[in-house]
Amino acid sequence: MGYGKDDELAINTIRLLAVDATFKANSGHPGAPMGMAPVAHVLFNKFMSFNPKNPEWVNRDRFILSNGHGCMLQYALLHLFGFKVSLDDLKAFRTIDSITPGHPETQDTPGIEVTTGPLGQGFANAVGLAIAQAHTAAVFNKPGFELINNHTFAFFGDGCAMEGIASEAASTAGHLQLGNLIMIYDDNHISIDGDTKCAFTEDVLQRFEAYGWHTQWVKEGDTDLEGIEEAIRMAKEVTNKPSVIKLTTTIGFGSLLQGTGGVHGNALKADDCKQVKKKFGFDPEDSFVVPQKVYDMYHKHAAEGAAKEQEWNKLFEKYGQEHKAEHDDLLRRLSGKLPEGWEKKLPTYKPGDKDQASRKLSEAVLEALHGVIPDLIGGSADLTGSNNTRWKDATDFQPPVLGIGEWAGRYIRYGVREHSMAGIMNGISAYGTLIPFGGTFLNFVSYAAGSVRLSSLSHCRVIYVATHDSIGLGEDGPTHQPIETLAHFRALPNMMVWRPADGNECSAAYYVALTSKSSPSILALTRQNLPQLENSTLQNAIKGGYVSVENEKADITLVSTGSEVCICIEAVKYLKDNHNLTARVVSIPCWEVFDTQTKEYRLKCLPDGIPSLSVEVMSTMGWERYSNEQFGLNRFGASGAYKDVYKKFEFTPEGISKRAVATVDFYKGTKVRSPINRAFQQLI
Amino acid sequence: MGYGKDDELAINTIRLLAVDATFKANSGHPGAPMGMAPVAHVLFNKFMSFNPKNPEWVNRDRFILSNGHGCMLQYALLHLFGFKVSLDDLKAFRTIDSITPGHPETQDTPGIEVTTGPLGQGFANAVGLAIAQAHTAAVFNKPGFELINNHTFAFFGDGCAMEGIASEAASTAGHLQLGNLIMIYDDNHISIDGDTKCAFTEDVLQRFEAYGWHTQWVKEGDTDLEGIEEAIRMAKEVTNKPSVIKLTTTIGFGSLLQGTGGVHGNALKADDCKQVKKKFGFDPEDSFVVPQKVYDMYHKHAAEGAAKEQEWNKLFEKYGQEHKAEHDDLLRRLSGKLPEGWEKKLPTYKPGDKDQASRKLSEAVLEALHGVIPDLIGGSADLTGSNNTRWKDATDFQPPVLGIGEWAGRYIRYGVREHSMAGIMNGISAYGTLIPFGGTFLNFVSYAAGSVRLSSLSHCRVIYVATHDSIGLGEDGPTHQPIETLAHFRALPNMMVWRPADGNECSAAYYVALTSKSSPSILALTRQNLPQLENSTLQNAIKGGYVSVENEKADITLVSTGSEVCICIEAVKYLKDNHNLTARVVSIPCWEVFDTQTKEYRLKCLPDGIPSLSVEVMSTMGWERYSNEQFGLNRFGASGAYKDVYKKFEFTPEGISKRAVATVDFYKGTKVRSPINRAFQQLI
Ligand SMILES: [Ca+2]
Ligand SMILES: [Ca+2]
Repeated sequence: MGYGKDDELAINTIRLLAVDATFKANSGHPGAPMGMAPVAHVLFNKFMSFNPKNPEWVNRDRFILSNGHGCMLQYALLHLFGFKVSLDDLKAFRTIDSITPGHPETQDTPGIEVTTGPLGQGFANAVGLAIAQAHTAAVFNKPGFELINNHTFAFFGDGCAMEGIASEAASTAGHLQLGNLIMIYDDNHISIDGDTKCAFTEDVLQRFEAYGWHTQWVKEGDTDLEGIEEAIRMAKEVTNKPSVIKLTTTIGFGSLLQGTGGVHGNALKADDCKQVKKKFGFDPEDSFVVPQKVYDMYHKHAAEGAAKEQEWNKLFEKYGQEHKAEHDDLLRRLSGKLPEGWEKKLPTYKPGDKDQASRKLSEAVLEALHGVIPDLIGGSADLTGSNNTRWKDATDFQPPVLGIGEWAGRYIRYGVREHSMAGIMNGISAYGTLIPFGGTFLNFVSYAAGSVRLSSLSHCRVIYVATHDSIGLGEDGPTHQPIETLAHFRALPNMMVWRPADGNECSAAYYVALTSKSSPSILALTRQNLPQLENSTLQNAIKGGYVSVENEKADITLVSTGSEVCICIEAVKYLKDNHNLTARVVSIPCWEVFDTQTKEYRLKCLPDGIPSLSVEVMSTMGWERYSNEQFGLNRFGASGAYKDVYKKFEFTPEGISKRAVATVDFYKGTKVRSPINRAFQQLI
Repeated sequence: MGYGKDDELAINTIRLLAVDATFKANSGHPGAPMGMAPVAHVLFNKFMSFNPKNPEWVNRDRFILSNGHGCMLQYALLHLFGFKVSLDDLKAFRTIDSITPGHPETQDTPGIEVTTGPLGQGFANAVGLAIAQAHTAAVFNKPGFELINNHTFAFFGDGCAMEGIASEAASTAGHLQLGNLIMIYDDNHISIDGDTKCAFTEDVLQRFEAYGWHTQWVKEGDTDLEGIEEAIRMAKEVTNKPSVIKLTTTIGFGSLLQGTGGVHGNALKADDCKQVKKKFGFDPEDSFVVPQKVYDMYHKHAAEGAAKEQEWNKLFEKYGQEHKAEHDDLLRRLSGKLPEGWEKKLPTYKPGDKDQASRKLSEAVLEALHGVIPDLIGGSADLTGSNNTRWKDATDFQPPVLGIGEWAGRYIRYGVREHSMAGIMNGISAYGTLIPFGGTFLNFVSYAAGSVRLSSLSHCRVIYVATHDSIGLGEDGPTHQPIETLAHFRALPNMMVWRPADGNECSAAYYVALTSKSSPSILALTRQNLPQLENSTLQNAIKGGYVSVENEKADITLVSTGSEVCICIEAVKYLKDNHNLTARVVSIPCWEVFDTQTKEYRLKCLPDGIPSLSVEVMSTMGWERYSNEQFGLNRFGASGAYKDVYKKFEFTPEGISKRAVATVDFYKGTKVRSPINRAFQQLI
């Protein structure tokens, strides 16, 4: 305690860096940084342990700015504490190829834990980081070795508080009693539409109490540094509940427009910049000024953080002597590598092995791998029995006091909260010691679209186990049958969308998903049974696509995925018997992976000279890249037994053959070019 | 009050219809209907006014089953009260082309107000219906003519209560003080993963109190019919708050598995069916039994409802004498037609008129139309100033007591709640008197994907005003720049996705959106300015696509949308000047509408013999349908000034020309087939 002029100076330095950077960019959000500089100062300088020279230290305290539009606050802090963010980087705020983009991106900037800006996401990420911390601590801490005890701190504003994903995540965090999670709610009464009283008049703290959180209110958030410190200290003392501190602040504190929407998303006017500098005792004509005192104060704290890491490293070394296996396992996890030889455990199948739904095949993979890959931590959005995401002897991740699981448990009950499940998985992945997977119906991965997009953008290795992947789910009907979903996620950069046709393809999907450290995956899995196919081998399938049925001098190539591959194979016989046409079949379980193969290989699968027809029971969109003609479902499905639904829409050997015949006729006498041949390369 | 044996009989009849239908289908959810039959009986028979012979009567009470998987409850009620749902329809539950699909769909079944099943959606729809009711009442009711005073009742379960969309909608409803909204929370402690204590331990009523709701708890929901009645009566008396009644029930009441997850999503076993029938005094060997007494009781209530409608019709006739304009306006609205001559108000532009961002052009349309189309009711998810969704003299839709608007106001402050905004719009649209529009950034329409899908599936005329439609938004960076978004929604059946290139195209987008009674629309609009183009006329643009620049003997067709059309037009000159190539340009602002044009017309736009190149600054997915080669962005964007971002990714006349040259070279000497020519028709 005991705050004085130096603290004020530091706080105002942060504020003015935000003012200058947004003014120079003529864009950005000065209001939140100016309002939250006091709490940021107290939190970073008094509470947080981190080493700017090694932002990857596993036991660092995590900080998430869920109201990511206020990122100049975070960039200023990173610079001042000595992370690799220079004053020039701050000057390049919001310009092309800078490390200070318009919203914080974990790939771009050292010290940014997760990518935020889309509101509510950082909130869910923070819950994920806290889950990962609790679990990792339970797995690795030993008597005398409290290796993992970091806190997760997050700021969020009114916008995040209004978003459904934050409500979902808050309910989950309350249930899970995440005592190491401390969030600061910036109660500034302003969102883009102006005063929050126009849309947001609920009692936020009462809501969080209902979720089971510990709540506090600091009423003078602009000035009461002692009160802020005391509240954070109290929050740390409450170890069986997450904590939220409502901090009433003035948005754009110091600006002529302080306390109004005018300072939320627009740079200050030139004269306002000057007056606020003057008010804070800075030279109104100068910009991007950092008094040496401020560097000194913050570098001192950074040095203490570096020393803590040194201590921790010594502890970890000693831990290695007493707990070698755990020591090595933690090191391995942090490297992102999987345990030696894990892939030998992947189930493989022979043609003739019994038919199984790919959701069951996925279950078999998880059953086989959970022992050899302890990093796997999974769950479902209340569809465990349908998604088949839980291995038999799994223990739930639960606060032990509930009597239904433990912190070291590896199965997470997400509840019916798809969006926050995905946001939490991104946070778990960001912690660095775990590989999260989570189940829901493919159709409801769309509920999580906001977070799924960030899985891709922030390179999170997370796995979406998306069962009930088509009209093949049958009776639940059009409300549950995906049509547009695969097109959506195939169009999302850095997302691997798999739709395996059988057991070996399913194992291949997991193989690629688990070994791709910087990409998330969606596994689209059937409810209905599938046969084990010829030529489907792990080696073939990990290429993303391969020839399933080869035939010399074929009249047509059928290109397909998942549950339609076996129907295409039946169509080969039907076409020969009924139309004397020779067909070949290509399975492309994952476009994104197939696209990375050599052109030569892809042309071998999809050669020139033979017309091709894609077959998939959903939107045909995008299939033009792999076929000349497309058979799909560009309308909503129907409720009924799955075979009846397939029949209604003609996804039968006959229905496919009808269109194959039309395709062959249409291309007769023309020089058919494979869709693999393009005029130019796409920008990537 | 005063319940007896007949009530019990009716309740058990409902329960057993659900048991029989799910048993016959060997699929479905008997648990919720069996648990909620008592409250359904009290609500429908004692409180709700409706006429089964005319399910469209505007002042009927609305009922929403947000836990739509329990739809056999609703189908049974519709049958018993005399809607056009026969016993045979119940027997056809969950079979192909029945009117009793696996989840309730408003298009399929008379008496189903909205399509539910995806959890949380019905909750938000109910809030929308209540908003529409409050607004419609304020607009049309006159002294002595309380034309509109219906209530909106909804059931929801634990699943809905966990979904973020329901939290968002509940917060909005509390803020708006929707006194005519009464929801029953089925507190049965069971969700698919079993006991809710594994994931959902919050205090739901306390949370709703925090939102500003009136809350009650009926602890014996299986048997306490008086208590249920009393609670609903109390809820009706509270007119300045929405009401929630927590009703503790036993899922699958009567089954051997009652109170367990075993009865949630599986039909009862044969012996369990028998025992429950016996327990309820029914013949264990008989199925689909309805005692005449039950029909009599419910038909009596239905007849009372029909009489109420008769009375209302008389009142409405008298209203017509005293308030002819309002009378005619209400009739017109209910017909789904727009006022005579409204389209003459649409803004039109000439080449040379000033450059404007299409978000501003959209604002001009709303400014021009709000007076002539009183059905328009709009808002924004806290981006009013960015989405330009508010006309100048708009009044906010707010409870008058807040002093910042009134019930007759037509501008809704949705807060940062995209998902519930969309779900609420679906509900507003379902009411029948309004056309809702709502704004957010295009990238955050994805947050609302669950509801957007239902806009399409349930044929809601809603308009998504989706600004900041591309990397052209500039500084906010990749977290805000859509890449996959248009592909996603273009792949969604019955969704019209518009990306207008200028003012006339923007007016055309609104024209088609407003006149399409059974389709929702997404309008993707720019932040940056656009010039007014040659050949862009209302008549051309409402075709969804047209020739923007024609050139005899062209070497290449450039196909584009939105902000890239004007760059393509510049590229025409660049190609001539630098490569002596002749290019033509086709603008396709809306694929879905273009697809409905004659093949002859489409081939005139995209003729055989000329290679084509699409140009759009986002995922190329699907553009293969309209072009031979595609220039797009299959990666994430960048943060910077918009011109710098366009330049980085080569969306300039030079960059387009480079790819046009490659395309011309690639197709040299080949017979180029227009992508409009296909081997067969898609199933629609
Ligand atoms: Ca705020
Ligand atoms: Ca329940």
